[in-house]
Amino acid sequence: MENVYYLDNAAATRLDEQVLEVMKPLYFDRYSVATSEFGYSLGVEAKEALDDARTRLAKALGANSQEFIFTSGSAESSNLALKGVAKALGAKKGKHLIVSKIEDFPVLYSARTLEKEGFTVDYLDVDGEGLVDLEKLQALIKPETILVSVQHGNQEIGTLQDINAIGKICHDQGVLFHTDATHTFMRVPLDVNAIAVDLITVSAHTLHGPKGIGGLYVKKGTALAKIMDGGFQEFDLRGGMDNIPGAVGFAKAAELVTADENIRLAAMRDHIITMVSEQIPDVILNGHPRQRTPQNANITFHYVEGESITLHLDMYGIAVSTGSACFSRSLEASHVIAAIGGDHERAHGSIRMTVGRFNTMEEVVFVVETLKKVVENLRKISPLGKE
Amino acid sequence: MENVYYLDNAAATRLDEQVLEVMKPLYFDRYSVATSEFGYSLGVEAKEALDDARTRLAKALGANSQEFIFTSGSAESSNLALKGVAKALGAKKGKHLIVSKIEDFPVLYSARTLEKEGFTVDYLDVDGEGLVDLEKLQALIKPETILVSVQHGNQEIGTLQDINAIGKICHDQGVLFHTDATHTFMRVPLDVNAIAVDLITVSAHTLHGPKGIGGLYVKKGTALAKIMDGGFQEFDLRGGMDNIPGAVGFAKAAELVTADENIRLAAMRDHIITMVSEQIPDVILNGHPRQRTPQNANITFHYVEGESITLHLDMYGIAVSTGSACFSRSLEASHVIAAIGGDHERAHGSIRMTVGRFNTMEEVVFVVETLKKVVENLRKISPLGKE
Repeated sequence: MENVYYLDNAAATRLDEQVLEVMKPLYFDRYSVATSEFGYSLGVEAKEALDDARTRLAKALGANSQEFIFTSGSAESSNLALKGVAKALGAKKGKHLIVSKIEDFPVLYSARTLEKEGFTVDYLDVDGEGLVDLEKLQALIKPETILVSVQHGNQEIGTLQDINAIGKICHDQGVLFHTDATHTFMRVPLDVNAIAVDLITVSAHTLHGPKGIGGLYVKKGTALAKIMDGGFQEFDLRGGMDNIPGAVGFAKAAELVTADENIRLAAMRDHIITMVSEQIPDVILNGHPRQRTPQNANITFHYVEGESITLHLDMYGIAVSTGSACFSRSLEASHVIAAIGGDHERAHGSIRMTVGRFNTMEEVVFVVETLKKVVENLRKISPLGKE
Repeated sequence: MENVYYLDNAAATRLDEQVLEVMKPLYFDRYSVATSEFGYSLGVEAKEALDDARTRLAKALGANSQEFIFTSGSAESSNLALKGVAKALGAKKGKHLIVSKIEDFPVLYSARTLEKEGFTVDYLDVDGEGLVDLEKLQALIKPETILVSVQHGNQEIGTLQDINAIGKICHDQGVLFHTDATHTFMRVPLDVNAIAVDLITVSAHTLHGPKGIGGLYVKKGTALAKIMDGGFQEFDLRGGMDNIPGAVGFAKAAELVTADENIRLAAMRDHIITMVSEQIPDVILNGHPRQRTPQNANITFHYVEGESITLHLDMYGIAVSTGSACFSRSLEASHVIAAIGGDHERAHGSIRMTVGRFNTMEEVVFVVETLKKVVENLRKISPLGKE
């Protein structure tokens, strides 16, 4: 199909050519395995490339090199954060965790797995705009609470949490705090020296970097047990062959993001939100009107199915999403929309539009114009008419 | 450094240009997230690319498409095989596993982790050439045995196990059989219709494919629980963003391996083994003289440290390894050499040389000539003199 406009979460997954360029020498020339100072010089070079990528990514968070480990992606990072803390502290301190109701699946289902293994989990409510209730969080913390996991920015509705306040509440009570920053890393400022946070999930695939590589910030001294057994890689926190091309590509991808680019993304997002709100009747913006990731717009169109909009936009070469990427093969309603108080109809009529580096304002204008036509036509034939 | 000859395990990790070529369209054009038939058409195309790669890799093992799942690499595959079976059958059938003593670290340490969680594990002995004792295996199986894990080919000494016989013993007693085929997939015939096997670990990184992608064959009906929580990807056996470029690259990498290439690798291996054995005194071939992977030669040079050989070969631009890739940052003696009856000296004097597609016979001839010089010189100054 010619002229495809990706405005779904895939927009951020298009690899940047500059990222591939820095990966190539690691693929074709310096393809060694990272070895110690006892190995041959190419192994040392490989290790230096890996550690250099680590240092640069750690620095992007204000962290030290020893506080950043590579994983296979954000799913593994969040699994490690939750299960690794549970394994390290479950017997010593307690078996209670708190996660928000709108976490992405790796956090949410890791929590459910831990419940099956004897842990108890409280699922923290959010308000109508997706913000967690800080007073409730405070009230839920118990002496046996070992971890609070609240995401930085939401995967579907883009709401940014006040992780500064959340982290303070956790640390005041001696509880570890993990945040999933998959959708905010490099897009929204995040400095470990400014906020009280112990574990941060990040990923390359949301930043025009390669798939299959992610990272976890682990604050020095954090109790964390390994969940992927193998060799002694990643400060003995993750076994498995080092993915050095991936690591180097990830570091480059992070560095290619600029403040100007984030402003440009936010301008496209704002165009979508403003024009749709003004020009299409009976819509709701999902998520917070101001505290949201620069790349995300999520809108419910009443009286139509999101799936129908998706299919009709597709005929115009526009790719948007309903619900989360994880809903592949499922028509289940979004747990995020449900948590912000949306009913079945609101969940099913919601469309997420996400912009990335390779989108243009011209595309966004076309998308809004097309949306107007599509929604108008669908409403004419919709069985979900106004009552 | 100019003219580097990789003869260590990294030899197999150099990406093939043809692999990158098939990955590029998935990086730059069809970079969508795999969605269901309810999504937009690009998502469907992405899912088709993923499933096509899956089908081709499954077929390479004689399996059906539904029996092959993608993971982040062989470490994750083996973690999933052992821990996933333990989770699925631990409470139902029993808490006993059997693994060989010379397994690679993902299997070995997954077994140790399971021991800490209340499982019992028997570590199966091997003979002087690295072959497991089939009678002992038979004797160790108990009603509560849920899994036997014996690798196909060894990571250090290259010994090929008789997985046909091992599988039969397991299946005769109703026990699941997992084999780690990281170092044999596409190099040594392996057909799930010819052997009794339930789970097979494979990886792209040993076949000039990309790092960060691996696979697990899961025979239809095998009891296996998910260990990586997230979405419902990979038949709900592994959560996490699909790595479609990686999957497509993996399938291509597997297909680029030919029978002729494997004969060529075996010829280079045989040159190393024959010439070193004939021309350098006091050496031992580690592993089986005939039943071994085509790419692997592992030789102990008495009276010298393997680390010294490595460092001296490095000055000639030759990269070889001591021990396993997993030993990064460790001078610990190899558990494989120990298991085949080698003492400390034998383990520390052992050098693994592994050949790949991009090595030539000319290189191998140079390496053997250099080895002769280096070993002779080192022996002159060695404190480990003959007694």
